[in-house]
Amino acid sequence: MSNKGDSESISAYGAARSTISGKPLSADDVRKTDAYFRASLYLCLGMLYLRENPLLKEPLRREHLKSRLLGHWGSDAGQSFTWIHMNRLIKKYDLDVLFVSGPGHGAPGIISQSYLEGVYSEVYPDKAEDERGMQRFFKQFSFPGGIGSHATPETPGSLHEGGELGYSISHAFGTVFDHPNLITLTMVGDGEAETGPLATSWHSNKYLNPITDGAVLPVLHLNGYKINNPTLLARIPHQELEALFRGYGWTPYFVEGSDLPSMHQAMAATLEHCVLEIKKIQKEARDSKKAFRAHWPMIILRSPKGWTAPREVDGKHLEGFWRAHQIPITDVLTNQSHLKFLESWMKSYGPERLFKDGKLVPELKELAPKGNFRMSANPVSNGGILRRPLDIPDFRDYALKDLEPGVSVRPSMANMAKFLRDVVGNNMTTFRVFGPDETESNKLSEIYKTGKKVWLAEYFDEDSDGGNLSTTGRVMEMLSEHTCEGWLEGYILSGRHGLLNSYEPFIHIIDSMVNQHCKWIEKCLEVEWRAKVASLNILLTATVWRQDHNGFTHQDPGFLDVVANKSPEVVRIYLPPDGNTLLSVTDHCLRSTNYVNVIVADKQEHIQFLNMDDAIAHCTKGLGIWDWASNDQGSEPDVVMAACGDVPTHEALAATDLLRRHVPGLKIRFVNVVDLFKLISTINHPHGMPDRQWKAVFTTDKPIIFSFHSYPWLVHRLTYKRPGQHNLHVRGYKEKGNIDTPFELAVRNQTDRYSLAIDAIDRIESLGNTAAGARERFLNLQMLAMNEAYDNGLDPDYIRNWTWDYPRVS
Amino acid sequence: MSNKGDSESISAYGAARSTISGKPLSADDVRKTDAYFRASLYLCLGMLYLRENPLLKEPLRREHLKSRLLGHWGSDAGQSFTWIHMNRLIKKYDLDVLFVSGPGHGAPGIISQSYLEGVYSEVYPDKAEDERGMQRFFKQFSFPGGIGSHATPETPGSLHEGGELGYSISHAFGTVFDHPNLITLTMVGDGEAETGPLATSWHSNKYLNPITDGAVLPVLHLNGYKINNPTLLARIPHQELEALFRGYGWTPYFVEGSDLPSMHQAMAATLEHCVLEIKKIQKEARDSKKAFRAHWPMIILRSPKGWTAPREVDGKHLEGFWRAHQIPITDVLTNQSHLKFLESWMKSYGPERLFKDGKLVPELKELAPKGNFRMSANPVSNGGILRRPLDIPDFRDYALKDLEPGVSVRPSMANMAKFLRDVVGNNMTTFRVFGPDETESNKLSEIYKTGKKVWLAEYFDEDSDGGNLSTTGRVMEMLSEHTCEGWLEGYILSGRHGLLNSYEPFIHIIDSMVNQHCKWIEKCLEVEWRAKVASLNILLTATVWRQDHNGFTHQDPGFLDVVANKSPEVVRIYLPPDGNTLLSVTDHCLRSTNYVNVIVADKQEHIQFLNMDDAIAHCTKGLGIWDWASNDQGSEPDVVMAACGDVPTHEALAATDLLRRHVPGLKIRFVNVVDLFKLISTINHPHGMPDRQWKAVFTTDKPIIFSFHSYPWLVHRLTYKRPGQHNLHVRGYKEKGNIDTPFELAVRNQTDRYSLAIDAIDRIESLGNTAAGARERFLNLQMLAMNEAYDNGLDPDYIRNWTWDYPRVS
Repeated sequence: MSNKGDSESISAYGAARSTISGKPLSADDVRKTDAYFRASLYLCLGMLYLRENPLLKEPLRREHLKSRLLGHWGSDAGQSFTWIHMNRLIKKYDLDVLFVSGPGHGAPGIISQSYLEGVYSEVYPDKAEDERGMQRFFKQFSFPGGIGSHATPETPGSLHEGGELGYSISHAFGTVFDHPNLITLTMVGDGEAETGPLATSWHSNKYLNPITDGAVLPVLHLNGYKINNPTLLARIPHQELEALFRGYGWTPYFVEGSDLPSMHQAMAATLEHCVLEIKKIQKEARDSKKAFRAHWPMIILRSPKGWTAPREVDGKHLEGFWRAHQIPITDVLTNQSHLKFLESWMKSYGPERLFKDGKLVPELKELAPKGNFRMSANPVSNGGILRRPLDIPDFRDYALKDLEPGVSVRPSMANMAKFLRDVVGNNMTTFRVFGPDETESNKLSEIYKTGKKVWLAEYFDEDSDGGNLSTTGRVMEMLSEHTCEGWLEGYILSGRHGLLNSYEPFIHIIDSMVNQHCKWIEKCLEVEWRAKVASLNILLTATVWRQDHNGFTHQDPGFLDVVANKSPEVVRIYLPPDGNTLLSVTDHCLRSTNYVNVIVADKQEHIQFLNMDDAIAHCTKGLGIWDWASNDQGSEPDVVMAACGDVPTHEALAATDLLRRHVPGLKIRFVNVVDLFKLISTINHPHGMPDRQWKAVFTTDKPIIFSFHSYPWLVHRLTYKRPGQHNLHVRGYKEKGNIDTPFELAVRNQTDRYSLAIDAIDRIESLGNTAAGARERFLNLQMLAMNEAYDNGLDPDYIRNWTWDYPRVS
Repeated sequence: MSNKGDSESISAYGAARSTISGKPLSADDVRKTDAYFRASLYLCLGMLYLRENPLLKEPLRREHLKSRLLGHWGSDAGQSFTWIHMNRLIKKYDLDVLFVSGPGHGAPGIISQSYLEGVYSEVYPDKAEDERGMQRFFKQFSFPGGIGSHATPETPGSLHEGGELGYSISHAFGTVFDHPNLITLTMVGDGEAETGPLATSWHSNKYLNPITDGAVLPVLHLNGYKINNPTLLARIPHQELEALFRGYGWTPYFVEGSDLPSMHQAMAATLEHCVLEIKKIQKEARDSKKAFRAHWPMIILRSPKGWTAPREVDGKHLEGFWRAHQIPITDVLTNQSHLKFLESWMKSYGPERLFKDGKLVPELKELAPKGNFRMSANPVSNGGILRRPLDIPDFRDYALKDLEPGVSVRPSMANMAKFLRDVVGNNMTTFRVFGPDETESNKLSEIYKTGKKVWLAEYFDEDSDGGNLSTTGRVMEMLSEHTCEGWLEGYILSGRHGLLNSYEPFIHIIDSMVNQHCKWIEKCLEVEWRAKVASLNILLTATVWRQDHNGFTHQDPGFLDVVANKSPEVVRIYLPPDGNTLLSVTDHCLRSTNYVNVIVADKQEHIQFLNMDDAIAHCTKGLGIWDWASNDQGSEPDVVMAACGDVPTHEALAATDLLRRHVPGLKIRFVNVVDLFKLISTINHPHGMPDRQWKAVFTTDKPIIFSFHSYPWLVHRLTYKRPGQHNLHVRGYKEKGNIDTPFELAVRNQTDRYSLAIDAIDRIESLGNTAAGARERFLNLQMLAMNEAYDNGLDPDYIRNWTWDYPRVS
């Protein structure tokens, strides 16, 4: 094979090679550190293999093993190694350190530390520090009904599961923003480092303020292999790797090799150097009160995959190869000699000298920090216990006032921004707004009055011309939905609050991240000691119905389908129809905990419908009849016109208006839906509505013309088995788009006022000839409007400026 | 403000500063090149503003303007500039060059080139090279019914729309794999460069073979600003930026400044140096027949945002600031002095000297290449015309043979891999397999026998121990779903074929990319001159029902919901129940064009049901009754048991077995669904089934117990309004997961055989007491199985090894 030029210098083997020299450890330190290391590795193997005989007091037999062997060995050693060396510094310098474990399936490395530190037994007393406890501790791992092979919510000290790769660095930064004394030690797997989200998240250092924020200390673990492939970063020349991280703005320190005594010295010296470097940067900034972008230290740890395993088994590579990724020796249940081999490998760590009755011997126990200084007990990892409610101003004070309902045109989003401005202002260390360079475009720039955009990179003179940049801002903008979402997740999980704003079409970019966050908070509900965290609030705007000019690529409201697939216990979707409902909903979301809240609202000026009292009443119900737009008072309607979403509400009201003008005598009931999950039966969702109530609103036998913001079938799915469900005719986005006017986009998808009015007529059988005439008129009006739009490149004014001119009934 | 340390050295202003010196252009060359540049900029502004008076022969008046001003000016100049300088080299060296436009909304820069080269008028004769044609050309831009502000499918020379940012580099690499003579010149926006997918895609250079592949020449455009923020890469010190790209493995060349004459010289010299460097690398590798990883050249072009616009308007920054992003002067419709300002700005480009009757003057026309050498006419950009059908072996030859249907247990996926192996082997330059480090884990390693894994990074000795790496492989593995998907899209769009394999739970990572690809191919259907490209084939495995041991984070079958939201014209979903159906479906997908095909199949060993002839017949129908598993022959059934997906089929058959054993006399019809869209009415999907046929299979009045692979509501949505739809009881994944056994995972979601059998009993009213007894028995059996699994950490053997022991009827 070619390309072997650099393979010598990038080997994971041999005596330690490191940027920082020095031998801070005494021979006795090395001996004890190594013993501690071996203790954790023994525990890792125990978790992978054993269900009985935890201390190998008896000769290892088949029946001591789990019948299905599951778990990963590959990154355990490197992670344990790093953790243990940080312990020394926590004690020496009284550090507040959180550990984030990035590599996939590396949980044994972490969980073993928690057990050694005694935290695991404190949290789970049945896994006590004795032989019986250790046996249970081993058995539960990757066992039905037990715990997973990631740092799942059951793992003390973890706020990052890492089941899907790529988010360790952005999560870590989220934890240290506004936590000036925290250092988040973050292991990054070299597999994970190949993902897009991870690759760009290194740039987070341009958003870290050394005065008001803590520090992230990344340890890129060049473990060498993924599942079945070498990793890219482990197979490029040394100088390229160094250049890459200098280019990302970090100061990389290398620790490379496999020889244990020298590696202990190298890691101890390097980690200490990095910690002191962090403290120095912080001191300089804090003393001078001048924030600057530092070239923060990071460590590149190159060690063999599955380090400390046998290098070969039966002539095939194990340690330092991809075969060490998962269960290192797989056939121990059927191959007696491999069973023996495993036994002697495990015994080589010396369990009888490390543990006394299942408890780490006192000499080693002393190496760990105490109390909450133990990384596995850091309160930040259970951020809910640190969470304090936001100081939220009364949202009623921001009401759109003096409204003529159905007539006044006001900017709902820009108005709500004033509320967010003051939420930011009142909570200058516990609330941040996140967004991929769209906050201004999304009409939220009012927020900059209390919190500008965080920016630690270079400044130009022209930035004073409305740039709104600041080293101490509260709005986090980077053109990476992944990084913004990761920061927000980390910020929330470590006990604070926030909101992400994004264009609706591109929120699919983080489908998978939101998925994983939902899964995390859902599992947390089952873990008693986990305190509730603030909700993840996602504000979607630049919505499909106003993306006509940007074309087809900018039209996708399908994020709601992804969210609706998650557990009803953790997701909420709101589509406020106007400005005051938007305020009410936002206030509600900011106060809630443990949800993913999705708010969908257009950013343009809109006709306003509800004054604040009505808005609150409407949002509290979640859905309801709008009497003022209905004319069926005291009787059964001929048709129910329903709408969910601001633009759909507008068009459905216009359709109602058309019907009332052109089909006299028709009785119409108008229903608006704010809380999407009201549509579901109460059996299936906590926000659901009982069938009794459903019937009172929607009837059981009248046609319902439902104008929906997103893909129509979501409503069908939510209303499955509702009484009268077969009378429900839903219109929504049907993936018909182009460079259009808003009106034409609606026509293409049959959601415009005329189509909705025709839909209604077509479904009211009793109408006869009256309807035929109206149908004809609506079609003509629709065509006229279309043509005018084509000629002008604009929707005709009567389309855009239509207002509701029936008086309010109430 | 602080942090101004480096702002001088990273300014976009002043005389050109460049890595490569030299003045390859004569004074006359500079004059002509600059005139050509001005012509394109004039066209860009025309597109943004004008609907009449295209050559400004009359004084500019309000009515000449579009009534809604839409479009983006920010990156147009930089893109035009780069394009024009490449033209010179194409002519000088007879280069085959494709242009990929990464920056958002930069289409005017590209479309103007196409018009200047005459291609636009050839493709759209109504936009001729005359005054009337130019007027139409201007008016259609970002105008209702016209074309968008990205390089949409209507754009000659484009295969990359760029509506969503981040995929330019991975798309570009996709185009040059196996196109050894192609250079894909790729503009990367500095906004786009902040996205995760883009940030990791720079590593694509470790997968490029200089002998058999072409080259990507990236031009990172440091335009300075995004929508409202500076870009990160434009605000870091020079040496950091350079280090970053050296770290990514490229050789960066800088061209920086705003002064036009010196910038023309610098770009001409630099681009030529890079082209020669590419040729030199290729020659070295091709002459020596030794492939190596080159440090390919790239260009970092730093120029002012909105370059050539006025620096200030009314004392506010325009050029070189974020205000130049979109329409540079927005109030020209209402502000007469700004209208005058615009007119004099446009006239400053000298349209009267550049165009004669709307056609570029001959002296400038000569600067562009001819025929297909014009980048806007490169056939690769319309890859469908280059596409040749694959040489596919007869899939019947790979049939699982000598099957005892319902009894034989065989590995469906590993068997299908043999078929893929030979597809690779027969098509060594036109077919590749892509996957994020999971091909081996997905049981597809047989493919390596004809095509190993492409790897141009460093090799170690141990790689010979089953590493399957090669510089000339056919399998592309990088731990980035984004990059794999981007490569595949680029490979297909440039006329070749491929397949992506991925774990099901993490395919959500590329939801948005697949979305955008669907939108691209759908729009292509409306563009007559676009030839059909090969389908994007996505094979999903490691499916939810076998992710019990990996836990909740690895359980998500919801990608199907995302796909099902796309236009029925471009998406297909297949869930083959066993090995021979998997073969038949895969063959079908590889032969198809213009679809996104999703195949969902488990990778473990499975009971086989159909021999090849039956499999083909079944797949051809898409869904059908399995007579051999039914006992309702010649009569109406009491219940229909239906299944879609391999594990669900297995459990539904076991439930049928249970019912037949324990409820004698019960008439059961068994239905299997392979082609998911068969469930939809033929009105809504080309693969749909007419209601008549539906009734014959599912009845209109019998309970249907439907066992589904994914979230159950997708089936409800697809079968909306089907006759007897209210009799449909769907079971699927309900987001209930943990570290489980497969059996327990099924029980939690009520998809196990016992739950399904109980479901059936509960819905057959006629059963009376017989049913009560059976129900009891099934519950007992279920509990026994659960307990056994808990004790052992394994599902009991009778669960895993259940086989169907009723004889085949046919």
